[in-house]
Amino acid sequence: MNRPLQVQIDGVAGSAVDVLDRGLHYGDGLFETIACRDARPCLLNLHLQRLSEGCARLGIVHPDLPALAGQVRDAAATTPRSIIKLIVTRGSATARGYGAHGDEAPRTLLLQYGWSADPDPQAQEGAVVRIAHGRLGENPLLAGLKHLNRLEQVLIRNEWNDPGIHEALVFGSSGALISGTMSNVFLVRNARIMTPAITRAGVRGVMRRAVLREAEHLGLAAEESTLSAADLDEAQEIFLTNARIGIWPVRRLEQRTLGIGPTTRQLQHVVHALLERGDA
Amino acid sequence: MNRPLQVQIDGVAGSAVDVLDRGLHYGDGLFETIACRDARPCLLNLHLQRLSEGCARLGIVHPDLPALAGQVRDAAATTPRSIIKLIVTRGSATARGYGAHGDEAPRTLLLQYGWSADPDPQAQEGAVVRIAHGRLGENPLLAGLKHLNRLEQVLIRNEWNDPGIHEALVFGSSGALISGTMSNVFLVRNARIMTPAITRAGVRGVMRRAVLREAEHLGLAAEESTLSAADLDEAQEIFLTNARIGIWPVRRLEQRTLGIGPTTRQLQHVVHALLERGDA
Repeated sequence: MNRPLQVQIDGVAGSAVDVLDRGLHYGDGLFETIACRDARPCLLNLHLQRLSEGCARLGIVHPDLPALAGQVRDAAATTPRSIIKLIVTRGSATARGYGAHGDEAPRTLLLQYGWSADPDPQAQEGAVVRIAHGRLGENPLLAGLKHLNRLEQVLIRNEWNDPGIHEALVFGSSGALISGTMSNVFLVRNARIMTPAITRAGVRGVMRRAVLREAEHLGLAAEESTLSAADLDEAQEIFLTNARIGIWPVRRLEQRTLGIGPTTRQLQHVVHALLERGDA
Repeated sequence: MNRPLQVQIDGVAGSAVDVLDRGLHYGDGLFETIACRDARPCLLNLHLQRLSEGCARLGIVHPDLPALAGQVRDAAATTPRSIIKLIVTRGSATARGYGAHGDEAPRTLLLQYGWSADPDPQAQEGAVVRIAHGRLGENPLLAGLKHLNRLEQVLIRNEWNDPGIHEALVFGSSGALISGTMSNVFLVRNARIMTPAITRAGVRGVMRRAVLREAEHLGLAAEESTLSAADLDEAQEIFLTNARIGIWPVRRLEQRTLGIGPTTRQLQHVVHALLERGDA
């Protein structure tokens, strides 16, 4: 999964980006990671909705969404399973300095990677998870956005290289539980589902949103709130979500072994059906 | 000052960067902004020292520093005054995901911009400064580094577009004063010089370091500490530093008018002489 199957820059095949792109200089942009199954993008509407909201918050003129949806569907159609990474940057700098001048032309990159059809052992057997040493800075300006400033995630992901550890849970600088390095986290206790409110740090994941919506449809109690290390200790079930992994039960957290509980399995079942239907 | 005079990518003239560069995907890299006067780079040793320290903290194999110094000097020699921006990224991704795999080949970009020889009115008359609404997330993992995750600075710089306002002072999420958007800040009170300790947020600026060193040489009391809004209110002199502007006295902060005091002028004089000598 090293080189992408294809790369499009503003809809045209390419392999390099202008050296003045503000995505490179400042991380001034956003991305989406879209799982494609049966040659179709999953949860595409939720991805494009988040991208559009992110562009609004950053003041980036967002790309033509119907055109972009068509581009993603066309790329997905070329192969049964793939991961499509969309990057939207503010475009090339038109002057030096941090300030945007409003005359930048946003740039859209589409990178399509192959994705194995092998069964995902963590989805079935559960994931082994550690607690990260590093914490996330907290800033409501950026919270929720899937922006290109990901150096914290890079450094925290580099804390371990044991392939038997699948993810780390990360706290924010205030001590609140935020998320995994590349996933959102949910706790279940007495049949209540809890997930960190993504108001000070973290990414508001598309699969997180889908899980909250499906929980509501099922009549399950689900809330977004400020969660602590104590909440984590008291959770009976823990699971991780992102667009690619769907739902991973956590079977081990540091020294603690957890069962894969009924709420996690119920939500996995519903989300799996959702992805099979190709709904967004 | 839109397009650079020249761009080198790993020492070769170029204009585009591999679409897989981790600088673009994650902001996984560092930069330096080097002022060049009389066809020579100013404070080059301090810039390269910081770059080297930053590479060590990020686990990036740092570029050959003597070779890089030669490359910067050669570029500077092509024109009397310029700004050279160096960017070092971890290089192209060798796999998907945040983790670095250790087999990336770091990439060095050199962008040289023209720089007007017109007198800088803010250096003489002082700068007009506001207080930013947005705050900086605090994270010791990243504090001090001049890394490529600059979206906070972009958003805060976009809070105003009045060209009569030259800079904004920014607080961290804990309420501590950190810096300007593109400068470090110093306060003077009863002949004591104070600057925020850059341990939780902000960039440890090269000019900041030079000013602290010169203050010590002059026998002035200077300290790095945690500073608050009250310290700002009580300051008799305030000045801003970066490699390009040198020292800007603050003559107005929001509604308050400040005089340009003797300590600021003394340090300006010393720093000006230092830059004239071309010392690092």
